[in-house]
Amino acid sequence: VALHFRRAVIHGVGLLGGSLGMALRRRAMAERVVGLGRSRKRLERARQLGAVDDLTTDAAEALEGADALICCLPPRALRKKWAALAPLVPDGAFVTDVGSVKRESVAEAERRFGDRALFIGSHPMAGSEMSGVEAARGDLFEGAACFITPTPRTPGAAISTAARMWSGVGARVAVADPARHDRLMAGLSHLPHLTAVALVETVYAGGDATVLLRAVAGPGFRDATRIAAGDAALWEQIFSENAPALRDSLDGLIDILSEWRDLLGREESAAALVERLERSAERRAQLAPGASGHPT
Amino acid sequence: VALHFRRAVIHGVGLLGGSLGMALRRRAMAERVVGLGRSRKRLERARQLGAVDDLTTDAAEALEGADALICCLPPRALRKKWAALAPLVPDGAFVTDVGSVKRESVAEAERRFGDRALFIGSHPMAGSEMSGVEAARGDLFEGAACFITPTPRTPGAAISTAARMWSGVGARVAVADPARHDRLMAGLSHLPHLTAVALVETVYAGGDATVLLRAVAGPGFRDATRIAAGDAALWEQIFSENAPALRDSLDGLIDILSEWRDLLGREESAAALVERLERSAERRAQLAPGASGHPT
Repeated sequence: VALHFRRAVIHGVGLLGGSLGMALRRRAMAERVVGLGRSRKRLERARQLGAVDDLTTDAAEALEGADALICCLPPRALRKKWAALAPLVPDGAFVTDVGSVKRESVAEAERRFGDRALFIGSHPMAGSEMSGVEAARGDLFEGAACFITPTPRTPGAAISTAARMWSGVGARVAVADPARHDRLMAGLSHLPHLTAVALVETVYAGGDATVLLRAVAGPGFRDATRIAAGDAALWEQIFSENAPALRDSLDGLIDILSEWRDLLGREESAAALVERLERSAERRAQLAPGASGHPT
Repeated sequence: VALHFRRAVIHGVGLLGGSLGMALRRRAMAERVVGLGRSRKRLERARQLGAVDDLTTDAAEALEGADALICCLPPRALRKKWAALAPLVPDGAFVTDVGSVKRESVAEAERRFGDRALFIGSHPMAGSEMSGVEAARGDLFEGAACFITPTPRTPGAAISTAARMWSGVGARVAVADPARHDRLMAGLSHLPHLTAVALVETVYAGGDATVLLRAVAGPGFRDATRIAAGDAALWEQIFSENAPALRDSLDGLIDILSEWRDLLGREESAAALVERLERSAERRAQLAPGASGHPT
């Protein structure tokens, strides 16, 4: 049977929340999609764009009679919000989020909801350097990977509802517990982002004429640093929320870069370096191809 | 007046050499384009594809009566080849190359040619993960940046001929001395490449299930590591030839990554981190847009 919410509340109607609203409405997966947020103007715009049916800035009003709440807030805001939301969520409602860091937020949500709601963390890997509801698209999740992050406390019905919702909007669902998710994301998303930023900082610290730098930066540099153009405030939250795992990944990268540093330019290490370069090229070539754009 | 070579010898008819041959022939910039290489089969293929008029595996035969030699060999091979080529190059001929590391090679060429030839180093920043003459295109250099790297010993006529040749095939010519070129490339090309390789190595060293890694690696990781898929043997030569400058760039990057490592997850550093992320995003946004593909 197709998933059908009676009243699905989307808290935060930016790129992800707006796109999810559009997708739920387009596929008739909810009777009413209710947008909840701080800015009435932004909510009105979301309604104009077809992302929500109803809107309110009042959480209690939004959640009355709701059977689903999807929180689409930045990671730090998300973690701090569960305490205020939990008492307003009707018993048995499905609750999830789209945050890109899970461990702390999931633990906090489980503390606040106890057994009252069907809570599970989600992380759809979709998005782009764009942000805001203007960039939202009903097909944003199609073909994207989406993590759901159950723990031993997660009710089975939360797992199945989340899997049906995300696959219903076109995502490929992957399962990992919150700690493992955060380690994976540290390596696959947060470390590459931070490294892109550090590459830009390194090149500019070199003090070469900025104009020349801009003119000759080739596609290699542009590809490697594309993700450095993301939303600064969002990424600071992501880095901070995932600091322990990201520090481990950074330690690993720094060790490997230091190893390379010591091997460079020694004739006797040439064959070993070629082998390492070949192995990385093979591994890189095996990555699933996928939509362009930038997941957080 | 348009540049017109009588007999232009292209040593090495792979992606760059083949593309240059096509471009010179298409624009009637040479009476005869002669392909010189080790493999007759590869040279025949280059002729079939329209990259050269004539071909030979004999350097003396190729260079007899030549007024231009463009060496399109990998960096280490290039540097070691000047000694053998110099005695065969007719007096006053124009000589350049397409190597992505310049300091050692240019110094060696100047030692070997003395004042007999119009030598100058070149580095067209064009190419892709592809290699070989099958990937060659007559418009490869259009819109690409191309360094020419004069030294105090470079004859004026070498500078003007190189500038006319590269702008004649559509490149934007930039000038830097060999040491500065190598420093710039260390930061803008070699460091990003090495970092992409190190990111792949770091993520795989994490020991998470390879299948999951492949399935969920998002576009951020794919962009950041795209250049890791380059030609391993070529990149080992580039790294080794540019080892001193690349080590300096690596030291800079490692320092910056270590700084980030220590700042992560401290509430009091949040504002400073947002500011750094914003600055990098701005700088990244100011880079000249350009063709995709991968310069070496």
